[in-house]
Amino acid sequence: DPCDVQSNPQGFIALCVAENKLILDMLAERFMQVGTATSSFSDSSVYCYNSFLGMPIAREAVAYFLARRFLFPDRPNLPPDEALQHIRPNNVGIGSGAAAMLNQLFFLLGEAGEGCLIPAPYYAAFENDMNLVAGVVPFGIPQENPILGPSDDEMEAAFLQAKAKGISPKFLLLTNPNNPLATIYQPSAVARMISWARNRNMHTIVDEIYALSMHKGHGFQSVLQILDNDLGSDVHMVWAVSKDFGGSGLRVGVVYSQNEIFMEGLATSNIFSGVSGPMQYLMCEILTDDAFVDRFLEESRTRVIQSYRICTAKLEEMVLPFVPAEAGLFVYVDFSSLLPEKTFEWERKLGELMFEYAHLVLTPGASQRETRPGMFRICYAWVHPSILEVAMERLSRLVAKVRRMDWSDLQSRSLSSVLE
Amino acid sequence: DPCDVQSNPQGFIALCVAENKLILDMLAERFMQVGTATSSFSDSSVYCYNSFLGMPIAREAVAYFLARRFLFPDRPNLPPDEALQHIRPNNVGIGSGAAAMLNQLFFLLGEAGEGCLIPAPYYAAFENDMNLVAGVVPFGIPQENPILGPSDDEMEAAFLQAKAKGISPKFLLLTNPNNPLATIYQPSAVARMISWARNRNMHTIVDEIYALSMHKGHGFQSVLQILDNDLGSDVHMVWAVSKDFGGSGLRVGVVYSQNEIFMEGLATSNIFSGVSGPMQYLMCEILTDDAFVDRFLEESRTRVIQSYRICTAKLEEMVLPFVPAEAGLFVYVDFSSLLPEKTFEWERKLGELMFEYAHLVLTPGASQRETRPGMFRICYAWVHPSILEVAMERLSRLVAKVRRMDWSDLQSRSLSSVLE
Repeated sequence: DPCDVQSNPQGFIALCVAENKLILDMLAERFMQVGTATSSFSDSSVYCYNSFLGMPIAREAVAYFLARRFLFPDRPNLPPDEALQHIRPNNVGIGSGAAAMLNQLFFLLGEAGEGCLIPAPYYAAFENDMNLVAGVVPFGIPQENPILGPSDDEMEAAFLQAKAKGISPKFLLLTNPNNPLATIYQPSAVARMISWARNRNMHTIVDEIYALSMHKGHGFQSVLQILDNDLGSDVHMVWAVSKDFGGSGLRVGVVYSQNEIFMEGLATSNIFSGVSGPMQYLMCEILTDDAFVDRFLEESRTRVIQSYRICTAKLEEMVLPFVPAEAGLFVYVDFSSLLPEKTFEWERKLGELMFEYAHLVLTPGASQRETRPGMFRICYAWVHPSILEVAMERLSRLVAKVRRMDWSDLQSRSLSSVLE
Repeated sequence: DPCDVQSNPQGFIALCVAENKLILDMLAERFMQVGTATSSFSDSSVYCYNSFLGMPIAREAVAYFLARRFLFPDRPNLPPDEALQHIRPNNVGIGSGAAAMLNQLFFLLGEAGEGCLIPAPYYAAFENDMNLVAGVVPFGIPQENPILGPSDDEMEAAFLQAKAKGISPKFLLLTNPNNPLATIYQPSAVARMISWARNRNMHTIVDEIYALSMHKGHGFQSVLQILDNDLGSDVHMVWAVSKDFGGSGLRVGVVYSQNEIFMEGLATSNIFSGVSGPMQYLMCEILTDDAFVDRFLEESRTRVIQSYRICTAKLEEMVLPFVPAEAGLFVYVDFSSLLPEKTFEWERKLGELMFEYAHLVLTPGASQRETRPGMFRICYAWVHPSILEVAMERLSRLVAKVRRMDWSDLQSRSLSSVLE
């Protein structure tokens, strides 16, 4: 029963999907450009078995793309030959989505029962990626200041806590830009966290799936740049077209690793996560079309920021604190002032009120392994701005009513007019 | 260093890839038909997250296809509505290749350390599909007559042998049409094997990846037909576009199962084996284009049989026994008369002679868990008929020389003229 401004203005609005639908028209237009889709079927190699690490031509294209956008973002005229000297196609693997690539890293580098430390709050589906097949156990790192990232002491404390529970941490998983915070780690913080993990013989996986979804004026440095492309055998980067290109349905994920044993294992196990030849071929064309990528990312940022402003202007009006976003497709909002007591039980209750009386679905902190009750993530780029405005208007009315409401008498129906 | 009739007539020829390249032009032409590829990018749903079991429209298309081609092959005018009443789209899962679907079946229905019985000889890559992630242990069933399939006694003997080794068989894996035999099981044999497995609380997985690659005049009955589409919760069918459509690079596999718990698990774990939205969309168009599929399969058979005849005419000339093929893209040949002693060591040696002196790569029985030394599989549909003729000519010359050769004096260079 989704909301439609004209025909169903009281319908439900999902603000819980971290996808960029604002730019879909531009992506679709590129794919439907005359010749593009058809030509991806014109090479006989796309129909046949290929290396399960990806077709050579596709791995080269991704290597170029990583060099151009991640390692040397300030060199728009990077010659392709030079790019491939820095990012070796042999260190690139292509599979069906970032989740599949994460699964492969955990499966090939970890043992069942080993642990993975993750700064909390975090994207909870990571737990599936490490646990379902690889049996690696997620272990959140509580942080004083999640925007700065965990301090060495905080990582150490989590490490020891895991150990005390019989879980030996083998991985540190960072998401940069961060989900759900929408912030960017300082390069020095990333380097520090990696060297902490390195000292404990742990692998660091850096999920940079929002790398190119920076808001204007907020620089992001990839781990490729931070480590001067010297990742060693223990740092691995994952990216996909899902977020930055709004193409989660295309199921194209990328892993970049200089660990040769991992790449060798991936060549076998990635048979279960292969990407179709034509889609690989298409991604070659798109990712190396610099003029298009420039235009696309620029326009995407403009639209994302426009929706971000619709969202945050209303939040400021409501006097609800939020983490100023530097990247990504969401904003992390502090609703704790509305709770009668700061517990996850009341957070859950507030989420129910949002659903029942405002027909809104937000992701509560509890679903993101948050330690402080009352935080909600709002994804503002999955709905049209006109729908977002309706959603924020409803949220504003709900918040005003909740502030005046008697939580001990929820049957009073005092909230029933939010949708009107 | 592949063979080219004109430019490199002495180059290597791979007769070990079970792929149909003879029909590639017709497949490519269909994909490149005006509008087809492009229109698969024109629906916004293909860019977004979807059920990891497959898009609803794609699962319906596959359900129709299974009804039309597997369950009711004799009803060319089957109405789509009726088809979906028989094959429920809810029982269809789509993932990146047959290997991925097999992996999911073993992973979700089995436990690490449990066993899977497979009539030997068999396609050895199955071992990877069951073992790599799921940890299920392959266990061959030696058979008196592999063409008839294992008798109940033979299955029972293998079952007890596995048990004696501490492996509890949970699965029976059948390939029908069979690889490497290229034969079709009698429907009554399939039913008998399933009921044997059923009595031991084992799942039966029927891999029908060559189902539509029958040679003319040789009927094949799918397990869907044999069991009157009443598979219960313990029989599962796997198919893919890899063989019958010559599209292994498209990475589209299908599982059909009436086990609801399995389908529920697949909805989660298949996130690691998702197929891109556009490719699913395309498969909808192709698989439901009855006129095209009819024409395509007919033409494919004609070409496959033409190559089969090139191959077998020469084998008959060499007086080498082979299993008459009823389906598939290969022929299983008995070279044992050439071996000085019937051992796998001499089989390996013969394979080396083929490679070294005839520049041919065949799959030896040892790689297919064969129990009798001297069997080789020849894949005749991966190379152009003109190349196949060169290959068979070389093989013929090699065989003639080997028959006259002194195996104790392999340095005699008596084989060196095979390539000339």
